Amino acid sequence: MVIVMKNNAAPEQVRKVVEWIESVGYKAHLSQGVERTLIGAIGDGRGKEQIQAMVCLPGVEKVVPILKPYKLASREFKPTDTVVRVGGLEIGGPRLIVMAGPCTVESEEQLMESAYVVKKGGAHILRGGAFKPRTSPYSFQGMEEEGLRLLKKAGERTGMPVVTEVMNTTEVDLVEEYSDILQIGARNVQNFALLKKVGQARKPVLLKRGMMTTLEELLMSAEYVLSAGNTRVILCERGIRTFETATRNTLDLSAVVVLKECSHLPVIVDPSHATGHWKYVTPLARAAVAVGADGLLIEVHPEPEKAICDGIQSLRPEKFYQLMDDVSLLERTLRKEVQKLP
Amino acid sequence: MVIVMKNNAAPEQVRKVVEWIESVGYKAHLSQGVERTLIGAIGDGRGKEQIQAMVCLPGVEKVVPILKPYKLASREFKPTDTVVRVGGLEIGGPRLIVMAGPCTVESEEQLMESAYVVKKGGAHILRGGAFKPRTSPYSFQGMEEEGLRLLKKAGERTGMPVVTEVMNTTEVDLVEEYSDILQIGARNVQNFALLKKVGQARKPVLLKRGMMTTLEELLMSAEYVLSAGNTRVILCERGIRTFETATRNTLDLSAVVVLKECSHLPVIVDPSHATGHWKYVTPLARAAVAVGADGLLIEVHPEPEKAICDGIQSLRPEKFYQLMDDVSLLERTLRKEVQKLP
Amino acid sequence: MVIVMKNNAAPEQVRKVVEWIESVGYKAHLSQGVERTLIGAIGDGRGKEQIQAMVCLPGVEKVVPILKPYKLASREFKPTDTVVRVGGLEIGGPRLIVMAGPCTVESEEQLMESAYVVKKGGAHILRGGAFKPRTSPYSFQGMEEEGLRLLKKAGERTGMPVVTEVMNTTEVDLVEEYSDILQIGARNVQNFALLKKVGQARKPVLLKRGMMTTLEELLMSAEYVLSAGNTRVILCERGIRTFETATRNTLDLSAVVVLKECSHLPVIVDPSHATGHWKYVTPLARAAVAVGADGLLIEVHPEPEKAICDGIQSLRPEKFYQLMDDVSLLERTLRKEVQKLP
Amino acid sequence: MVIVMKNNAAPEQVRKVVEWIESVGYKAHLSQGVERTLIGAIGDGRGKEQIQAMVCLPGVEKVVPILKPYKLASREFKPTDTVVRVGGLEIGGPRLIVMAGPCTVESEEQLMESAYVVKKGGAHILRGGAFKPRTSPYSFQGMEEEGLRLLKKAGERTGMPVVTEVMNTTEVDLVEEYSDILQIGARNVQNFALLKKVGQARKPVLLKRGMMTTLEELLMSAEYVLSAGNTRVILCERGIRTFETATRNTLDLSAVVVLKECSHLPVIVDPSHATGHWKYVTPLARAAVAVGADGLLIEVHPEPEKAICDGIQSLRPEKFYQLMDDVSLLERTLRKEVQKLP
Repeated sequence: MVIVMKNNAAPEQVRKVVEWIESVGYKAHLSQGVERTLIGAIGDGRGKEQIQAMVCLPGVEKVVPILKPYKLASREFKPTDTVVRVGGLEIGGPRLIVMAGPCTVESEEQLMESAYVVKKGGAHILRGGAFKPRTSPYSFQGMEEEGLRLLKKAGERTGMPVVTEVMNTTEVDLVEEYSDILQIGARNVQNFALLKKVGQARKPVLLKRGMMTTLEELLMSAEYVLSAGNTRVILCERGIRTFETATRNTLDLSAVVVLKECSHLPVIVDPSHATGHWKYVTPLARAAVAVGADGLLIEVHPEPEKAICDGIQSLRPEKFYQLMDDVSLLERTLRKEVQKLP
Repeated sequence: MVIVMKNNAAPEQVRKVVEWIESVGYKAHLSQGVERTLIGAIGDGRGKEQIQAMVCLPGVEKVVPILKPYKLASREFKPTDTVVRVGGLEIGGPRLIVMAGPCTVESEEQLMESAYVVKKGGAHILRGGAFKPRTSPYSFQGMEEEGLRLLKKAGERTGMPVVTEVMNTTEVDLVEEYSDILQIGARNVQNFALLKKVGQARKPVLLKRGMMTTLEELLMSAEYVLSAGNTRVILCERGIRTFETATRNTLDLSAVVVLKECSHLPVIVDPSHATGHWKYVTPLARAAVAVGADGLLIEVHPEPEKAICDGIQSLRPEKFYQLMDDVSLLERTLRKEVQKLP
Repeated sequence: MVIVMKNNAAPEQVRKVVEWIESVGYKAHLSQGVERTLIGAIGDGRGKEQIQAMVCLPGVEKVVPILKPYKLASREFKPTDTVVRVGGLEIGGPRLIVMAGPCTVESEEQLMESAYVVKKGGAHILRGGAFKPRTSPYSFQGMEEEGLRLLKKAGERTGMPVVTEVMNTTEVDLVEEYSDILQIGARNVQNFALLKKVGQARKPVLLKRGMMTTLEELLMSAEYVLSAGNTRVILCERGIRTFETATRNTLDLSAVVVLKECSHLPVIVDPSHATGHWKYVTPLARAAVAVGADGLLIEVHPEPEKAICDGIQSLRPEKFYQLMDDVSLLERTLRKEVQKLP
Repeated sequence: MVIVMKNNAAPEQVRKVVEWIESVGYKAHLSQGVERTLIGAIGDGRGKEQIQAMVCLPGVEKVVPILKPYKLASREFKPTDTVVRVGGLEIGGPRLIVMAGPCTVESEEQLMESAYVVKKGGAHILRGGAFKPRTSPYSFQGMEEEGLRLLKKAGERTGMPVVTEVMNTTEVDLVEEYSDILQIGARNVQNFALLKKVGQARKPVLLKRGMMTTLEELLMSAEYVLSAGNTRVILCERGIRTFETATRNTLDLSAVVVLKECSHLPVIVDPSHATGHWKYVTPLARAAVAVGADGLLIEVHPEPEKAICDGIQSLRPEKFYQLMDDVSLLERTLRKEVQKLP
């Protein structure tokens, strides 16, 4: 870290800062500028919070962190891409992985139909919500365990691993029993108790970026899971909240490139939640593949106008087939490029 | 709700929408404009999701909701101000209530000293964190139950009720045992499982707005608590995330006025977390009082440079005394005005 | 427009609103809901501001606009794609158009070298700044007319039309003399005097979205140019300002799809300014092509570390060649898809 | 500036950076950390852009600026508060200055009535728009010179200086002839040609923060005016664009404190445009006074429902009188506090 002193800082104040740095086991390194004195605090990261608190000392203008706060999630720590293996599939490997299915498990019939549709289209993993985070307490909250049971059954019937959201620490064991991947939703990206709990699970974790989460914070949340022992983390960009309201959120495709630069973890993209409208999903799925995403998360519903939730962003079967045609074409074209990303 | 048809919608499409509206038990009301046909869907709200899904029907351009999605939290539902009573205090009544204390309970000594300081300054409620939501898994995570125990003890010694954060459904019972108010932090504002759980508690809930939560969403989160049976909810504005980085977040004081217009619940303001720097806390605390807040949440630490977390935003004792002088002066001046807010 | 009355609005208040609507030449259409009275105001748009002002009348809760505020820019007004022709090129036609060159014209040598590089790479139009909008008054402000002269010369030598920014109404005639396309920068997107002035020019206008401009506002700014008589407007997405700081701005690729749905105007993408770092430019250029953009705007500099401004986001020649290889490959693959965008 | 090298940077790369720093006349100062080498670039600011471009050199991870980019606007440059004198009034002095009047000059009658109302209420300066920045080209664009003439006349009749917006460099001389203060609107805050032009005027400049302008950028825009020779600049916070839509913009009152800390220029607040609704104006005006603003900018209209623009945010006369009562009371209470702001 670099401590920047005020332009009128007294020598006594500088001396005090140096002493403080040394008292927490760091080395201090002075740099006398024309207008400012800078003091580098050189150490191994353990005293970090005490160093930051030095901003409260007299004469200190600011404390500038130099190192990134995440470690296990960083590409410096692990330069090679992490490949998460699930049921014979590789997420983060050379092939694009498509996870698709309905927002919510509504009934056995609806789910089975969805599963056959996404399988036919070429999806690799079946998604479906059993516990639903709904803004309104009056909205349908999901079929819960019965939904999990149906999801597992549909996955088995169609030969696809399944992914579903877990919202509460008390439900992690239950969801782990039924699901091949544990999804942490955008609203829970900083639910630290939940992150620690899925960090102890034996299933991979699909971690969605929150609407308000910086990429650094997302990697810090991944760090919670990794540091608890679960190394199989998949990151997911799903749109951030901005001033623009033409789409539900703003899909931040730059995030894919930044995350792959800073981290070794696989990154997938969810254009359905990001845009909030089926009309925009296919072009943005193409863009996600072109930018170098490792996979897609797509909402599909046999009859969107009858969907209990998020019908507006769900693709009808024929639209999903077209999306799969488009992205397959792109994937074949780009495979070589995608592998040599920046 | 109002369904807006596309400008070239066929009569057959309009007929289909009307049928759909009637099929979910609503009445349809046509309004033929120059360029558009509008169809009002008149009913009691139960069929709401099916109506919104109509945006998937052919010929429909958009569906415009007219009513607000929250009920119990709304001023229409309860026109008079809610006053939350805690240990002889009234939050939302004529007096400004100040909750103050350290970010984190670090030790008995630090907490006791803080408690005596805030009591001396005139604070009404003692705050302090035992379970801490930290962005980094490597940061101090709080003293947990031992922290709760110390907090309760400090509250009893100084004659102040206490407020502390609860982060996980499994800890609600424990926190309720020690704390007079259960705080839901900004990152958990849409942790719906947690909201339902504290909705069943017998203690009041202090619900902090998330960094990217709209006021409507905040009231929907309050609705979760209210609809689970706990009517003692206190809302807290603590800054939202914007593009500006000069302060940690952007304190949205308009939120106080908007919330008090739309809702009957008390609203307090936390300028410490919003600004992220002690220098800005006192002027913004004054502004919060002037805009009509029912209370303040202020971080105070006997030695901020030694604080384990958030030292930079904590007021030293003498600064806190000055804040209390300022806001008391303002409160006496404005009391009459504050009571006749729009 | 729809006027929503308060839930306790008196019949007298409703009557007054109806009278007011009729007094500005609209027809009023009542819709009596369970909790609210809605009043449709049906007319031809001329009285729009008076209708919106009705929100000030007693008993009115809000006024909801139904129609979009732009006309000439809308796809309803002109359903077929607008193709802007410049020097034998078609922007908005079946081929992707690449505009490339240095941020700033620094010298004849630097510009000529850049021009040969981008020509060799396959770019169609040469870009370069002569008048530079710089945040700091102490930064280099551009070579002005000498820069324009060099740009024209470089374009002629390499057989490419040129595009450059115009910042002030008093310079429009001058820039028009030298440049084939007039660029309006992000900071001037709501400089209405400038929009009116370029609306009278005989050259096409490249209109960049502002960092905080909604898509509706961007189309309203286009409407200024169109309504002043210049029908050759090209829209450009170049990133919006959000809370994320890992990239300079957040490239909003959904904007391309939304704009092409709502408007007939061509849409290009500038990944250089959006991301602010050369490392991210090529993947996002690919994504822009995949999402359906009509063109790209790319910064290229022979020696980025010597660039007077924005060196960090400029591609070296060899990186630009690779970008062109990638996007050409994609374009050939997608051409059929791009043409059938939703 | 501090250059942070990559963790695997070669000694040769470090040497190259040092050479580069020295080649632009700075001194280099190495700091060898555990994981990173930092290189301080010590000099007088003239070589700044070349230093920033060093981020393009091999082995460099990032360049961290230490000094603020504005000078004349900074409190370091001028520690004492700037007081702008206009017609016997002091803006930035011990008294709160209120500027009030209609959004737009609509007619002599409307303006005169407004002027008498605001004078009666105790306002010091009359505001009114003659050139109007309107999002739609179809909206009323202002009475232009006739509006200026009426404004001057109204100011003279009521004994108040006047303030009005200038939107274009070609109109600065005209507006300066009639107006006592030149207002630069939010959309023109980075219209650098206009800033330079008003920097040469003999009248003070009221510079409104843009919806998307950081405080640092606002001070850089002020720097444009100051460095062109006009030292009489008044800053104005008027709300920023965020995700929240309950108010038109989000009034950022922290901005007042931050600006007053970093700069010597006076700061006023416009709660009318920020909130976009008259209901919220008075409480936020009180908050602005409490936080330490030097003045207020308030929209007042004798009959808001008949206003050509922005009627919804204009106060009726009786509401304005109440606002003035409230803020006068506050001002008297706080005067001592306001003077000792941090």
